[in-house]
Amino acid sequence: MPELRKDPIIGRWVIISTERAKRPSDLVVEKSKSHGGFCPLCPGNEDKTPPEVFAFREGNTQRDMPGWKLRIVPNKFPALITEGVINKRGEGIYDKMDGFGAHEVIIETTDHNATATSLSTDDFSTILLSYKQRIMELKKDSRFRYLSIFKNYGEVAGSSLEHPHSQIIALPVVPKRAMEEIDGAQAYYSYKDRCVFCDIIDQELSDGRRVVAENNDFLAVEPFASRFPFETCVLPKKHMSSFEDTDDSMFESMAEVFGLVLKKIDRLLGFPPYNYMLHSSPFNKNVSEFYHWHFEIIPRLTRIAGFEWGSGFYINPTPPEQAALYLREALVGKRLTVVGNKGGLL
Amino acid sequence: MPELRKDPIIGRWVIISTERAKRPSDLVVEKSKSHGGFCPLCPGNEDKTPPEVFAFREGNTQRDMPGWKLRIVPNKFPALITEGVINKRGEGIYDKMDGFGAHEVIIETTDHNATATSLSTDDFSTILLSYKQRIMELKKDSRFRYLSIFKNYGEVAGSSLEHPHSQIIALPVVPKRAMEEIDGAQAYYSYKDRCVFCDIIDQELSDGRRVVAENNDFLAVEPFASRFPFETCVLPKKHMSSFEDTDDSMFESMAEVFGLVLKKIDRLLGFPPYNYMLHSSPFNKNVSEFYHWHFEIIPRLTRIAGFEWGSGFYINPTPPEQAALYLREALVGKRLTVVGNKGGLL
Repeated sequence: MPELRKDPIIGRWVIISTERAKRPSDLVVEKSKSHGGFCPLCPGNEDKTPPEVFAFREGNTQRDMPGWKLRIVPNKFPALITEGVINKRGEGIYDKMDGFGAHEVIIETTDHNATATSLSTDDFSTILLSYKQRIMELKKDSRFRYLSIFKNYGEVAGSSLEHPHSQIIALPVVPKRAMEEIDGAQAYYSYKDRCVFCDIIDQELSDGRRVVAENNDFLAVEPFASRFPFETCVLPKKHMSSFEDTDDSMFESMAEVFGLVLKKIDRLLGFPPYNYMLHSSPFNKNVSEFYHWHFEIIPRLTRIAGFEWGSGFYINPTPPEQAALYLREALVGKRLTVVGNKGGLL
Repeated sequence: MPELRKDPIIGRWVIISTERAKRPSDLVVEKSKSHGGFCPLCPGNEDKTPPEVFAFREGNTQRDMPGWKLRIVPNKFPALITEGVINKRGEGIYDKMDGFGAHEVIIETTDHNATATSLSTDDFSTILLSYKQRIMELKKDSRFRYLSIFKNYGEVAGSSLEHPHSQIIALPVVPKRAMEEIDGAQAYYSYKDRCVFCDIIDQELSDGRRVVAENNDFLAVEPFASRFPFETCVLPKKHMSSFEDTDDSMFESMAEVFGLVLKKIDRLLGFPPYNYMLHSSPFNKNVSEFYHWHFEIIPRLTRIAGFEWGSGFYINPTPPEQAALYLREALVGKRLTVVGNKGGLL
């Protein structure tokens, strides 16, 4: 049973994995894993994963059989387990609880070699829509307080399987970083009576230097205080605190801007490893007035050194204005599908 | 002129580097840099670094000439610059200031190939003592609020030069992570009237499962909620909030425990890349009652993936109790120099 443990000084929760426990020799040799050409996520190998919990399928095809377009299964080596109770308890001055949670894998496509560049806006829209579906389902379980959805692309970014996939981790606690954003947004709101993200959107749109792409509904922007070169934020222009409140009709529009950013990153930086992560509302707290959901995209180009680890203070060698300029120019001329009453060339 | 920018949501400061500005092509090809055998930090090449600001030298040897045992010089490519004023200002809703600060390199030894394992306790003590010397000097400048001292060992850990060195970055703001520790320790103190680090030391010593090494004065322990395999904390057993208040007579004892931990990591994990970082008091705030200085050591064995980045929630595959067991057993039988009235075999 994995354990959730809380840092007694800064309050950060950590999953201490027991099922995945690694000895020194496992860590030393942690290198590229060759799967000998076999991929457990490819069509035809459905029996090599735990039974699916969700899928977009062709009519008349059976669960855990081919015929799917996208498939979600529990992680075979989960960081947290769905059985049991939370069992919060102390150990002297320390706090811990059982490693309860859900850990699922979203198999994004049947195409083993697909990339953000090869996926159509429609394909990507399907992936994003599956995130909403799972959030709607998992939030019914009142033991979950936060749901983390993320993608690791490339080995450097932490991916151990080639087949395109994202992951979901449902947690019984709200992660520190999410709480920091919520607390910061709440403090701003109590001072200004406005959402800080909405203010950022206004300022970025009128300034323009850090804008990467936009359509009627969504904006992609390099953060003013970005930590990493080409770090990008994608967010809805209208205030909305929870990703799952996004109407189904908006997903094509979301995929258009988000997908274009990923394609631009692929083109400009030569298919670099990257991570993206959804930041949305926790389930146990009403943050609807002041929080604003968004995706954070981080190409993994630079190494994180001791200074960054120890201080939480980052040195970014590429100013976001320059990064935005490069990204705006990448794939210039690519015509966007017109989604709303705007659109056109970005 | 580099810029310091503040994230408007969570308040994290970031250095946006302009002198070091990198284009996409620089980032894409960021690989192992070969220096063609030439090392600017080796004896004889003193004119290849900026003029030294501190050195331990043999008597009668001249500044910026051979004869040194340890030498501190400004970083040739500093992340922050020492000229000018801080110039705090806004940009719409954003906050920024000029990239004022100091960035120095501590050339730890004349031996290009030295490692933690090859250095004697006395050598390592000299390195640690030089940290104190520079803190004492740099804190005289009231524009600095925090001083970050860290070492990156190995390319994966962010080191770009082979020659053994650590770095100092003096900052006009207190980094977020430092503030979090201070705020957390203060909250604990206001509740319990005790230092949280002192309570941790008491509990760890009586529990014993996470202890890696100790002598009369210092303790090395795997944190209860460690984020990474073999993450280790070295701290003084007696309450002390500022590293620079450590009496010179204590450095041999500090080097004994800290150096032994690094040697154990070298032995157990085969000279892995690692970072260590000093966590000590800021200069502009009295935290003496509740803060407790310490070193954080992180071997770089696992990759940080999207979940960790986005959530600040870590998955550690090696429980700290197991890591401590492995580290305690590594180099068993190595006799410690008796420092106080204890000592002996660890």
